[in-house]
Amino acid sequence: MSDVAPPVAALVEEFSKLPGVGVKTAQRLTFYILRSPTDQARRLSEAIMRVKESIIYCSRCFNITETDPCSICRNGNRDQEIICVVEEPLDVLALEKTGVYKGLYHVLHGALSPLNNVGRKDIRIDELLKRLAEGSTREVILATNPGFEGDFTADIIKRGIKEELRLPHLQVTSLARGLPLGSDLEYADEGTLSRALEGRREL
Amino acid sequence: MSDVAPPVAALVEEFSKLPGVGVKTAQRLTFYILRSPTDQARRLSEAIMRVKESIIYCSRCFNITETDPCSICRNGNRDQEIICVVEEPLDVLALEKTGVYKGLYHVLHGALSPLNNVGRKDIRIDELLKRLAEGSTREVILATNPGFEGDFTADIIKRGIKEELRLPHLQVTSLARGLPLGSDLEYADEGTLSRALEGRREL
Repeated sequence: MSDVAPPVAALVEEFSKLPGVGVKTAQRLTFYILRSPTDQARRLSEAIMRVKESIIYCSRCFNITETDPCSICRNGNRDQEIICVVEEPLDVLALEKTGVYKGLYHVLHGALSPLNNVGRKDIRIDELLKRLAEGSTREVILATNPGFEGDFTADIIKRGIKEELRLPHLQVTSLARGLPLGSDLEYADEGTLSRALEGRREL
Repeated sequence: MSDVAPPVAALVEEFSKLPGVGVKTAQRLTFYILRSPTDQARRLSEAIMRVKESIIYCSRCFNITETDPCSICRNGNRDQEIICVVEEPLDVLALEKTGVYKGLYHVLHGALSPLNNVGRKDIRIDELLKRLAEGSTREVILATNPGFEGDFTADIIKRGIKEELRLPHLQVTSLARGLPLGSDLEYADEGTLSRALEGRREL
C-alpha cells in the first residue's frame, strides 16, 4: 500500500474496522465510493454523523430514539399494560415489522453471560424491575433470544419478578418455541424438535 | 420500520446501497456505528468525504491519486520503460504489494465487454496507445484478468499495438497462467490445468 494515495488507504482502514468487513471487502467498498456520485457518498457520510449526533436512548424502554420518551412509549394507541423485553434494538425492529405486537418494549442491551462477564448490572434488568414495580403492567413477554444466554437471562428476570416484586397479577410469558415457518422437519435440530413436541397444540 | 428513528432508517438505507450489503447487514453496521465511539464514526464519515474531495485520476496512467502525475509516475527510481496494463486501481494495489514490479502502470478502468456494451471508447485503450506511440517504452505487460473479457481486451490492445503503432522493438507480454500457489492439482479447473501444461518449464 506504499504508493496508494493516503485518503484511499485511510478509508480502506476505516471500512475494515466494521464488523464482518475484511481488507478485501474494505477495498471494494472504497473503490465503490470512489466511483459513486459525490452526492451519494455525502449522504452516507452525513447519515453516519447524524446517527451519532441525534440518537439517544429512551429513558423508559432504552430503545434508540431521537426524542425522549421514544415514539413507541409516547404512542397512546399502544397497549400500555404489556411490555415485551428484548436484548437489542434490532429485535424491536423485527417485532415491529410483524405488525402484530401493539404493546411497549424494554431493551436490555445484551444478555447475561457468565462466561463473558456480563452480569446483572451490565444490562437493563433493574430498570425493567423498577418499571414493573410501578404496578401498571398486566403482562411481561420475555423475548430474549432462544439459546443458553437468552434463556438464562429470561430465567433471572422471571425470578426477579417473582421473588423481588411479588406482583401476583403480573403475567410472565415467553415467545413460542417450535419449528420455524418454511422449515423442514427432517433438518430441524433436536432442541427445536423437542420444544415443538412439548408445545404441541390440538387442531 | 414505521417507529424507527429516521436517522437510523436513513443510515440503514445508505449502507444497503453499498455492493454486497443487504438490509440485514446494513442494520448490523448501523447498530455497530450507534455503539462505536463518536471519534471512530467521525473518522469513517470524514474518510468517505476526503476520498471524494481529494482523489483524482493521474493524467498519465489513470490510476487514482491525490497529485497529478501520481507518485508512481513521478518516481524516478522506477523503470520508466515498462508499462503494466491493468483493469482497475485495485490491481495496481495487488501488484504493488508483491514488491516485485518496479515499472509504471496504465489503468484501463474496465475491460472490453461486447455483451455489456463496453467498447474501446469506454476504457483507456487509446490513451495507452498514445503513451506507447511516444516511443520511450521497451515492454508493455498486458495484465488484464484471466478470462474472456480480460483476454479479449488484451488481444485488442495487442492488435492495436501491432497494426496501428508499428513499433518493432516494443515487447508485448502477459502474466504467466498456471496453478496458483498453495492450490491442489486435483481441484484445478480444466482451463487452468491446460494453461499450466502448455506453459510447463524445464527444471
